[in-house]
Amino acid sequence: MSGPGLIFDPSRMTAREIYRFMIDAIVPRPIAFVSTRGPGGGFNVAPFSYFNAITSEPPLIGISINRRKGQPKDTLRNIEDTGEFVVNVVPESLLAQMVRASGDWPADADEFELTGLTPAPAETVRAPRVAEAPVHLECRLHRLIEFGSTTLVVGEIVHARADERVVTGGRIDPEKLRPVGRLGGDGYAIVHEVVHQARPRADAPPEGSRT
Amino acid sequence: MSGPGLIFDPSRMTAREIYRFMIDAIVPRPIAFVSTRGPGGGFNVAPFSYFNAITSEPPLIGISINRRKGQPKDTLRNIEDTGEFVVNVVPESLLAQMVRASGDWPADADEFELTGLTPAPAETVRAPRVAEAPVHLECRLHRLIEFGSTTLVVGEIVHARADERVVTGGRIDPEKLRPVGRLGGDGYAIVHEVVHQARPRADAPPEGSRT
Repeated sequence: MSGPGLIFDPSRMTAREIYRFMIDAIVPRPIAFVSTRGPGGGFNVAPFSYFNAITSEPPLIGISINRRKGQPKDTLRNIEDTGEFVVNVVPESLLAQMVRASGDWPADADEFELTGLTPAPAETVRAPRVAEAPVHLECRLHRLIEFGSTTLVVGEIVHARADERVVTGGRIDPEKLRPVGRLGGDGYAIVHEVVHQARPRADAPPEGSRT
Repeated sequence: MSGPGLIFDPSRMTAREIYRFMIDAIVPRPIAFVSTRGPGGGFNVAPFSYFNAITSEPPLIGISINRRKGQPKDTLRNIEDTGEFVVNVVPESLLAQMVRASGDWPADADEFELTGLTPAPAETVRAPRVAEAPVHLECRLHRLIEFGSTTLVVGEIVHARADERVVTGGRIDPEKLRPVGRLGGDGYAIVHEVVHQARPRADAPPEGSRT
């Protein structure tokens, strides 16, 4: 490692500096574009990138949602109230609308209206899905875990679908899906090319060994 | 959504089919190339892609580690034993070595030797860092949370560094870092181009509104 570079020492950094280092270093992050239904029947959709799979037995995912100014975001409040949500996958074609939905809109704003996206009924939950998203995961709340001002929402995927336009040979094809990954600042990465690198088998000769 | 496409119904799918759908749908995933020290002093390094930030107050990250055939992976056992680990960021130049380290090697294998990577001392923990990685996060175990056969390792970043070769204007520069994201199967995505899309402000005119 050449020179000092950037040093991350939480004891000498502001909350904003810590946040910036983390969003720049942990990349590219998958995006959960989460649609929910409020207790009054209104819809909400917002993106989150502290998101990933946790395990496939059972099929669990985790999404971190920060409480904004001490109040839970609409998405979190709706998940707490209804126990249901849909994770919509964001392809390149929905990037601008997804970012627009991420604005700091008032609680009663309908991000479907603000973005021109279409709410469509899901199969197994009452939360809507985003009709334009080529892949969506219908989830039921499994568990909420608090970490400081953040809630980790753990959801179980109870049903999902991938549009046939993004499927090749029975699997979702990343070169057709062209998913968006989140970087730091206002940066995004579009996956449009796949590099294949096969895992070695334990009985393969260790040609990289120094012994 | 055109045609039936791929339907995900866990009640009618094998564990392998569920796993495949999830790793194809939740993309691109950031990679934690985790280096640890065993109780006997030996080193271990292995990649995990069910990984993300959880919150920046305090700076917490989560990594899911599956128990292999009922036994904890070396990485998890070392974290449980020592309470420490280092997350190394994987740039394009380390892709082949990272994938090699992901092989199903025996517990006593030293992946540093198998890959030709160099263990270097960390600043604040006894676990080694990967000298060739341009960014590394030194972590102390915060909490372990069990989900079926998987353990979610929650770590607090106590120190980190980014090499000056990947820094521009005081921030990590993704076009210099060229991080690797994980896709399904044996697929990876290299971030080499950044798309910028600014978040709207709440007082901006809702030009996308349908109302």
